[in-house]
Formats: sequence, structure tokens, C-alpha cells
Amino acid sequence: MKLSKIQVDDFNRDGYVFLPKLFSDLEIGALRAELPSIFSLDREEIERDEKSGEIRGAFAMHKYNEIFAALLRHPRLVEPAHQILGSDVYCHQYKIITKQPFGKLDFPWHQDFASWHAHDGMPQPKAMNYAVFLDEVNEFNGPIAFIPGSHRQGELESEAEVLPGITPLHTMNAETIANLAEENGIVSPKGPAGSAVFFHSCMAHTSAPNISPWPRNIVYLTCNRTDNFIRTPTRPYYYAGHDFEPISTLPDDCLSKDIHTHPAT
Amino acid sequence: MKLSKIQVDDFNRDGYVFLPKLFSDLEIGALRAELPSIFSLDREEIERDEKSGEIRGAFAMHKYNEIFAALLRHPRLVEPAHQILGSDVYCHQYKIITKQPFGKLDFPWHQDFASWHAHDGMPQPKAMNYAVFLDEVNEFNGPIAFIPGSHRQGELESEAEVLPGITPLHTMNAETIANLAEENGIVSPKGPAGSAVFFHSCMAHTSAPNISPWPRNIVYLTCNRTDNFIRTPTRPYYYAGHDFEPISTLPDDCLSKDIHTHPAT
Repeated sequence: MKLSKIQVDDFNRDGYVFLPKLFSDLEIGALRAELPSIFSLDREEIERDEKSGEIRGAFAMHKYNEIFAALLRHPRLVEPAHQILGSDVYCHQYKIITKQPFGKLDFPWHQDFASWHAHDGMPQPKAMNYAVFLDEVNEFNGPIAFIPGSHRQGELESEAEVLPGITPLHTMNAETIANLAEENGIVSPKGPAGSAVFFHSCMAHTSAPNISPWPRNIVYLTCNRTDNFIRTPTRPYYYAGHDFEPISTLPDDCLSKDIHTHPAT
Repeated sequence: MKLSKIQVDDFNRDGYVFLPKLFSDLEIGALRAELPSIFSLDREEIERDEKSGEIRGAFAMHKYNEIFAALLRHPRLVEPAHQILGSDVYCHQYKIITKQPFGKLDFPWHQDFASWHAHDGMPQPKAMNYAVFLDEVNEFNGPIAFIPGSHRQGELESEAEVLPGITPLHTMNAETIANLAEENGIVSPKGPAGSAVFFHSCMAHTSAPNISPWPRNIVYLTCNRTDNFIRTPTRPYYYAGHDFEPISTLPDDCLSKDIHTHPAT
């Protein structure tokens, strides 16, 4: 699958492009059906709230789940990355972030690249994220919010903030966000399960807690240019991939057909 | 000002009615201009975060501010209350809730009546709220969220939850909210400064924190039927009014003209 020239131009101007229903209900159903077994695993890649034991998410699902291993190599994700980044890409981070109904999980304003630069030694912001909605995302269940065009500023000032469950997040200060939002506003891509958002590694973004009774599971895949591999890894492989081999694509029907012929890598 | 029959029917069916731009920019400007001086007062009616000192709001502004005293008696608020509640009304609670930019202030799901019943001995849910937006309310600065029609269930199960800065709030459990929202969904009235929402005292509602650089100041006025006066007050007057005299209305131009002829009560 290729993005149109308009979509690539949108990405370059706004820092993101939203693709409603990129995956079918059948494909999303197959992925969502795996969540209970993934979240019940006793592995270090599964993240739980220290106090409540509530699931916050899972990392590196391609190491232990076949269908998520297939999604990682899906042409509807990887081919657009080749277009946008102009090179082969490898997997820097792959995760499910779970916002439980009425949950407390939120994230302050940040650029992902600031943390990858500081913790992992990623040289340049030549990486991007895909978000794939496993549930409907609406205004009440903690959607992600972007400042369009903020990626064009490159890496901005940030400060390492210690948050529960993850390595310190490099968060942005109020003045920087106020200035960026005054110029460009804030947007929040929302839509049905199966929708996807591709966004730049320097996109300023945040998200509020889920105040609804509806779960919000989103898969995030971070692709990095193979020549932009991380130089000074300090974190476990599931936060910052150590395997710089290019992702090779599977057939387009890999989620709905014969998935058992594509073993986990 | 009278509500139309359709608006009253909407209120009775949905538990709320939204009135975009009920007050002009001039009127709202006059109110908003008072905020710095109100928030700098050293009075027990001004609520600050215990740790940060950040302003969370102000109560009973009619006791110390002339223009807010005029707003309390505004015919665009009081006459609809007469229509909806079918009686004279008095002021049970009058407050400004301030969600600071990037602030943490939020409220879990609750029905106001549950707390007024428990703390103040309000006999019946024959009270209502007006929210008047002093700032634009959008999806990012912590809008209020309703479950339409939830008021028709009357008072539902709740549990007193201790929250910072206010008397314990009677909050609703996850299962109740999930059932109500499955049937009726969730809505979030948003709009420009000057807009108003009237809502029932048994409306199930919540709000998320303000993740934006934009302040969100909302005035809430609670009117109670005079014959539904509270029987067993346990809280200071600014949380639960002890003056059961009916509110008499001022002229429609009371916010924009000659406000100094209407002294604070």
C-alpha cells in the first residue's frame, strides 16, 4: 500500500496523517482476540500498575504473539514508512497502550524523539510512529492529541520526568506548548477501530485519562531508518530495539489468512 | 427570557439543555475581568490547591463581588429555572470552577443531588444547575460530560469519596456508569465563552483534566425550589446556602449597564 502524494504532503506539513479504517473489522477482531492472553502473560514485557496491578500495556508483542508479529510486518504500515522515511526501516519500539475504563493512565506533552535521543542515542528524528486503533477512539476514552506542524521545529527543550512504569519521559514545558498551540491549535484524531494515525517522532503530543466505560487499546509501532540505528542503548530491548535488521513485509492478507505460517520472529 | 417548549421538553428528556452564546462577549468580558481580583482575595470562599496553592475556584461570589451578584439574579438564568422547577428558587450554591492550563483538577462520575442529599439534607432532586462558560470550552480544556437521560433514574447508588478541597463527593460506581452509558452514550456540551448549559441535579456527569494551554473558568449556579430548602445543613454557607429567600430578577441588561446600582446582597 502506498500513500498518495497528498497524504505524504499532509504528513510533511502537519506531522501526521489519519487513515480511517485502515484495517477491517475482521483483522482488528483477530488482533483484539489476543489481548486477554497477552495481558495474562507473566513476562517483563507486560506492564502493570505497581499499586493496582492494572494492565497498562505490553511491549515487543512480536516476540511472543504470532498475529502481532504479522501486524509488525504488515505492508499497510511498512510501505508508507518506506515512502515517508525514504529508506529501509527497523522496529525501534512496538507496544500496546491500554487505557482501562475509568483508568488513570495519561501522558504529559512530549516529543518521542527527545526520549529516544536521550536514553537510546538515536542520532536524528528519522523515525515515525504508527498508531493502530484496536478499539473505537472517541473524545471520552483518552484520545491522543497533537499540535499540527510542531514536528517542523525539530527537537525542543524538555526535561526528564519520572513517571510510573516507564523510563523517565522527556516532557515539554507549558510555555513551549502554549506557543505552539497558539500558532497551530490542537487536534485529536478519533475514529472507529481499525483506523490508524502515522505521526512524526518530533510531534508534540499528549493524552488525557479515559473517563468512559469503554476500553482504549492502541498499538504503537515505531519504525526507525536502518542508518539511524541507536548508538548508545541503555534500556531493555522492549523499550529500544537492538535488532536493526530491516522489516520485510508480508502479504496484505497476513492478518486474516494463514497467519500460522508466519511464526513469531 | 423564557425557554421554548422544545427546550423544556429537551431538558425533561435529556436532563440538560445547551444555549450557545446566551451571554454576549461584552457581558462575559465584564465577568472575566473580575477573576484576578476575586482569586487574589484572602477569604475562606476562595479554594486553592493545598500543595501548589493553585486556584481551584471561588464560592459565593455574590457576597463579595457586585457583577457576580448581578449574574446570580440574571433573568436569563432565573426565569428558565422558574419554568423548569415550577416555583420560586433560591441559591443553594454559586461558584466558579477554574481548570488551570495543564492543571490536574478533574471530577469523577457523580450526581450532584447525592451529595446535597447526604451533606445538606435536601429532600428531593428539585434543584438544577446552570453552567455559564467564561472561556471557550473545547475538547481539550476539561469539558463537562453528561449521560443524557440519566437524571430520569433519580438518585442512584453512590459512595462518599474524599477529594482534595471539597467535602466528600458522592461518586458513582463503574457498573452503574457503564450501564447508563451503554443505553444513552455520553455527550459533552462545548462552545464559545458566553454559552450556558442548564442541567438536572440527578444528571450523571464527570470531567477530565485540562490538557491544554487554555484556561477553563465556568460559573455554576445551583437553584433549589424554595419549598425544597435543605433540612439538615452541615456545611458552611458557601457550600450549601442557608438563605432560602427567593431570587428576584434584575433587568436583562444588568451585566452591561449600571451594575453599580445593584449592590452585592
